[in-house]
Amino acid sequence: MEFIDEIRPILGKYVITKKEDLIPYMNDASYFTGEMPQAVLLPGSTQDVQNIMRIAYKYDVPVVVKGGGSSLTGSSILKTEGVVMSMLRMNHILDLNLNDKCVTAEPGVRLDDLERFLEKYDHFYPPDPASSRAATVGGSISTNAGGLRGVAYGVTKDWVLGLEVVLADGTLVKFGNKTLKRSLGYDMTALMIGSEGTLGVITKAYLKIWPKPERTARILAFLRTIDDAGRAIAEIKEHIIPEMAEFMDKISLDSVPDAIKYPQGTNYALLLDASGSKETVQRRKEDIETILKKYAIETRSTMDETEMNRIYQARKGLYASILKLREKEGEYIVIGDIVVPVSELPSALKEIEIARDQDGIRAALFGHIGDGNIHANIFADLSDSQSMERVNKFMMDMAMISVRHGGSVSAEHGIGIEKKKLLVEEMRFNDNMRTLELMKSVKKIFDPKNILNRGNIFD
Amino acid sequence: MEFIDEIRPILGKYVITKKEDLIPYMNDASYFTGEMPQAVLLPGSTQDVQNIMRIAYKYDVPVVVKGGGSSLTGSSILKTEGVVMSMLRMNHILDLNLNDKCVTAEPGVRLDDLERFLEKYDHFYPPDPASSRAATVGGSISTNAGGLRGVAYGVTKDWVLGLEVVLADGTLVKFGNKTLKRSLGYDMTALMIGSEGTLGVITKAYLKIWPKPERTARILAFLRTIDDAGRAIAEIKEHIIPEMAEFMDKISLDSVPDAIKYPQGTNYALLLDASGSKETVQRRKEDIETILKKYAIETRSTMDETEMNRIYQARKGLYASILKLREKEGEYIVIGDIVVPVSELPSALKEIEIARDQDGIRAALFGHIGDGNIHANIFADLSDSQSMERVNKFMMDMAMISVRHGGSVSAEHGIGIEKKKLLVEEMRFNDNMRTLELMKSVKKIFDPKNILNRGNIFD
Repeated sequence: MEFIDEIRPILGKYVITKKEDLIPYMNDASYFTGEMPQAVLLPGSTQDVQNIMRIAYKYDVPVVVKGGGSSLTGSSILKTEGVVMSMLRMNHILDLNLNDKCVTAEPGVRLDDLERFLEKYDHFYPPDPASSRAATVGGSISTNAGGLRGVAYGVTKDWVLGLEVVLADGTLVKFGNKTLKRSLGYDMTALMIGSEGTLGVITKAYLKIWPKPERTARILAFLRTIDDAGRAIAEIKEHIIPEMAEFMDKISLDSVPDAIKYPQGTNYALLLDASGSKETVQRRKEDIETILKKYAIETRSTMDETEMNRIYQARKGLYASILKLREKEGEYIVIGDIVVPVSELPSALKEIEIARDQDGIRAALFGHIGDGNIHANIFADLSDSQSMERVNKFMMDMAMISVRHGGSVSAEHGIGIEKKKLLVEEMRFNDNMRTLELMKSVKKIFDPKNILNRGNIFD
Repeated sequence: MEFIDEIRPILGKYVITKKEDLIPYMNDASYFTGEMPQAVLLPGSTQDVQNIMRIAYKYDVPVVVKGGGSSLTGSSILKTEGVVMSMLRMNHILDLNLNDKCVTAEPGVRLDDLERFLEKYDHFYPPDPASSRAATVGGSISTNAGGLRGVAYGVTKDWVLGLEVVLADGTLVKFGNKTLKRSLGYDMTALMIGSEGTLGVITKAYLKIWPKPERTARILAFLRTIDDAGRAIAEIKEHIIPEMAEFMDKISLDSVPDAIKYPQGTNYALLLDASGSKETVQRRKEDIETILKKYAIETRSTMDETEMNRIYQARKGLYASILKLREKEGEYIVIGDIVVPVSELPSALKEIEIARDQDGIRAALFGHIGDGNIHANIFADLSDSQSMERVNKFMMDMAMISVRHGGSVSAEHGIGIEKKKLLVEEMRFNDNMRTLELMKSVKKIFDPKNILNRGNIFD
């Protein structure tokens, strides 16, 4: 293969072509399996990435860029023939400047490693997807990842100052820089965020960081109904912005029995954070608890670091813990991820619960309720076509519930291959097909040969 | 004229064609004068905007969209023949939902009116450009406006949830919605922000709002040198995020003698806010003052509402107050607007001061120093070509200082016609001309006939 022959002198041993070594790159965290790559390439520098893309462009070879492989929608697997470019060797934190509130990182840095690094300086990078152990800087930018701190701190798009990007033909471009603001023509940095590897290859990121809050109190509330959960959050958010606002249903709670014990009658739990200065946190906690008590069977709170961490990790680890509740060995978890305006939560949550029961689905409901973001971890037997039909029906039901309530079919997981149809449905429902056409035209500008993540987001 | 004949039945009296009524639309707040419009159109609804654009597209008539006309770069005046579309009739706040933290507004709503409206609910929309009395929702989105609260709250791009936009050919598209997060293909909302009316016409905006802080303390520090100002801010920002961090030089201070009295030896002043809960604000204020005292001749602080407002308005009104210091009737003020990383402030500020003196320019220096954003209000005699040469030389010097320090030639005023050359210089310096090409290609997708603000940002 001419393409590989030309790459090999540049990357040496970082060109993988042995079949058994390629297999792990056929999957990500979704339930899809991609094509077998012709090769896996591991660049160590921006220059490597430029060379790879220049040659791939010349030979029309499709390239899928892969970070930690934690995509839940199949966005980091090959949909056609081609190669996978893994960014995991480019995993260096290049610079930290507290005055600038900026950390400069390569795309392969894992979010947990970044967090540990910043902790030493009493700072943090707010986006914190549940997959942060695996997820990388580049990958989380590519899906505009959210996570547990979105209710107060927003999502990835609010924390990326600038990017260096290698285009499909190998040209290096700089979208933005380390400055905190800029009004310099079109915001190409923003266009890259959430583009799922279809517009360019991120080789460097300037990320905004923030001082850690002095104190945090973690509050648990146990509720009977899903309406109560939605109404409690809506009322809290009217005047208070908690630093975290998560919810979990009974299936989710039952998957983490050691971390969270709940009183009788509980069907849902809310997990909230009140953060701030040491003087303020107690009062903020009480303000939140006062509202929660109106809806809850019981509320509890803690400021003990170990206890708080146990609860946080239990919530973050739900994907893995729910997986253990599978009834059959071959069952997978398909994850729903929709968003609605917070005021629509009480009715949207109720409708989702009804749809789940009507569709004959077993699914845990949880999510970043303070953002209006609801996840459903659906037990799915991939080998059973009737089971999969029900799963797909429920995914579509959830999507249309979100859209009817003024929301979107993807909150933080992106489109990948999983939601291509749902994306079209949302656009169609809103009489907004032209927007999809505009997106496709943007793709053509950046990647005229369609070699970057071909078949992702749209065909 | 066929175009006007077709528009008139739709807009009736809201088509202005009398020459004396057109003249006010030839200017904005910049020192440029635009072409005389063939007509000024005042749509009252999205449907009106769609009709106007459909007809303009058919007849190839260039359209400049105008909000409050507070552009400082000439972005809201006609550069060619064509018409001006004023959005000031579309000035309604359509919806407020505190649970969603979202206000829905038409583009012609003035930012001060929005602020007054939200105050009743103890909320605010953080972007607060000095021109907020005139500036509109649509215009401030179109330049990604910043203002006095950027250091803690970011700029316009951080507060726009979604937009409704009419494209060049009259098609209505919806970029985003009221939800707080979304990962749904390319972020077309973000692409509109800062696009200065060249990609589409904003007809509705979903804006994120925030609860007002309980208490604010305003701190003044008076300093001898510009290095002291830069170093003080850099040290404060290492661990504290103030809610405002402005600076003013002596010319600026002398323009507001009633609001801010300074001690002998003062050459620069810093204005900072410490906000937060009632318990916290005192300590935050003291933490900031402790650092300031290391650099300052004197510091002062107040929590008196009237006094705080006097200082804030004095800073916000600098454009007008400095204008009064003109030595000749015909003098104009040309406003520089650059940004550097905060850590580069001490050296960049010093270089700007030296350049100003070497270029033989009279200019007041001030700005949003906490963002690294420096303004220079330059006294300019438009009728004196030698004076204008010096002004242009200094504008270029400032631009190149910002770029050499890793910053940008425009922080929050946009490109307009004023900075087209500087934009190119920045791109060239960073070996980044391809980014400019990408921007031009994006423009072609959205506006293939180049009828929206033709000649703005790039030729």
